[in-house]
Amino acid sequence: MKTLLEAIRPTTFLEPLKLRERLGLDLTVATETFQHTGSFKFRAAYNSALNANGDHMITASSGNFGQALALACRMLGKRCHVVMPDTSAQVKIDAVRGFGAEVVLINTKQVGREERVDQLMEEFPGAYRASPYDDDHVIDGNASLGDEIAAYGEFDVVISPIGGGGLISGISKALCNAGHKAVLCGAEPLLGNDAARSLASGRLIRNEQEPMSLADGARTISLGNRNWEIIKDGVSEIFEVTEEGIREAVFRYFLDANLKVEPTGALTLGAVMENRSDFEGKRVCCVVSGGNVDAKVYAGIVAGSSLQG
Amino acid sequence: MKTLLEAIRPTTFLEPLKLRERLGLDLTVATETFQHTGSFKFRAAYNSALNANGDHMITASSGNFGQALALACRMLGKRCHVVMPDTSAQVKIDAVRGFGAEVVLINTKQVGREERVDQLMEEFPGAYRASPYDDDHVIDGNASLGDEIAAYGEFDVVISPIGGGGLISGISKALCNAGHKAVLCGAEPLLGNDAARSLASGRLIRNEQEPMSLADGARTISLGNRNWEIIKDGVSEIFEVTEEGIREAVFRYFLDANLKVEPTGALTLGAVMENRSDFEGKRVCCVVSGGNVDAKVYAGIVAGSSLQG
Repeated sequence: MKTLLEAIRPTTFLEPLKLRERLGLDLTVATETFQHTGSFKFRAAYNSALNANGDHMITASSGNFGQALALACRMLGKRCHVVMPDTSAQVKIDAVRGFGAEVVLINTKQVGREERVDQLMEEFPGAYRASPYDDDHVIDGNASLGDEIAAYGEFDVVISPIGGGGLISGISKALCNAGHKAVLCGAEPLLGNDAARSLASGRLIRNEQEPMSLADGARTISLGNRNWEIIKDGVSEIFEVTEEGIREAVFRYFLDANLKVEPTGALTLGAVMENRSDFEGKRVCCVVSGGNVDAKVYAGIVAGSSLQG
Repeated sequence: MKTLLEAIRPTTFLEPLKLRERLGLDLTVATETFQHTGSFKFRAAYNSALNANGDHMITASSGNFGQALALACRMLGKRCHVVMPDTSAQVKIDAVRGFGAEVVLINTKQVGREERVDQLMEEFPGAYRASPYDDDHVIDGNASLGDEIAAYGEFDVVISPIGGGGLISGISKALCNAGHKAVLCGAEPLLGNDAARSLASGRLIRNEQEPMSLADGARTISLGNRNWEIIKDGVSEIFEVTEEGIREAVFRYFLDANLKVEPTGALTLGAVMENRSDFEGKRVCCVVSGGNVDAKVYAGIVAGSSLQG
């Protein structure tokens, strides 16, 4: 049974020359696009499956966490159920099944995702209910990325995407433990700016509905409670990125860094591009959370950009 | 003045799980997409500029070598002229200029590329004529990638793209020097299969005209003489890849490895996919030469693939 550090692939640090010169910024990218299953979620999922009691994990996820948990369970010899809407892209369903998990498709008009997980938890009393962010093992799993950033070098600012807050809370914990001096910032879609509003008001605020941002990894109603407790003290600022800013950042990575990123992963560069002066003269580390994006969506962004140069 | 090894970025090794499972092969990717200027050519160009007499380099290139030489000369404080067809994409012209080189645009219907370089060499007698492949410093620069592959681990087969032969001859030299046991193979477009025909016949054969493959880095008339001398003994087999195979490999990297590659860089995976049984049970290292591809071409490949799963 591999430990977390044996199971994960270390992050890939890039210092893309063209992008740095284009923006005139001292930019380093820590990209999780080459992590197993294509996103940082594998760190969280593996650590959760490794530490959970029992040999059966159940979660609801239509995105990266489902794939990550499926692979983690396969590696650890655990059974895994993933609840997914029956409208999920076939390629995502196939990916979860491909890693050996049992997919439970639901019609979300008839039953909620968490309600279906409740039913499964009743059916399988020994199973562990895996949360993609509001879970200490998840946060500790993600902290392994923060450890790598702290070990890589000196940064003045580290900036991470925010959805449910699992990644940034892990990074915060790690930077704090390492005594790293970087200021930690977040980047979330303007369309779903609950984290920015929460940080500004000092209390956890929820979106009224799932925000339909292109950054589908950040379509969360609110931060998790455990995540908020860390974020409210550990995060200095949260940038709200426009949809156009997300698209431009995806394209910039394509053109100036040869890096394929998913829209959620591009939030941090979008924040930097939309707030350039805040980062001038600073050593900036942009975290890219993952690279899994629908082929047609990606092609549309790359071919449709107005920034062809 | 940085040495070659100080100037280059080490290659990025990936062992992409989804791709390995999809193909059922023990596949490692050595990707130069994150090398400075986005392709292995920077290794060649830097070593050439570092070792050339004088402080002025002249070359003809509409592709990756021009950008690479421009950056190398900027780093080494040398003057640089790059002859480019006036039909080159503006983004490529801008990239070469952006690195500080002087671009000489020509109408190829009126003057040949090498003819225009001849004229410049007369105008600037102290300048060095830089060849993108048929040059010992270029081969030695590319050998640095072979050194990294040899140091990374044991492989049964290493497979490299072939255009003019600069990359594969460098890798051959390095693997030989290291006493590495891997069989070295090449991958070139079926549309321009001069290298395969040369290897089969034992003598250097030229294409009758520039082959219009999607793999624009392999649109060469023939191997260089210095390259052929190394290839004829050091390379075991050259696979001829169809245009459809190149497109499918670009898409597979996109979907199963989150890796943006240019068509020339995808030749090796194309060869593996089209000749899968040859690689079964072997530890295979696929070299990806670079990632610079026109946005609309790439979007067309990604959106147009029939392999959506």
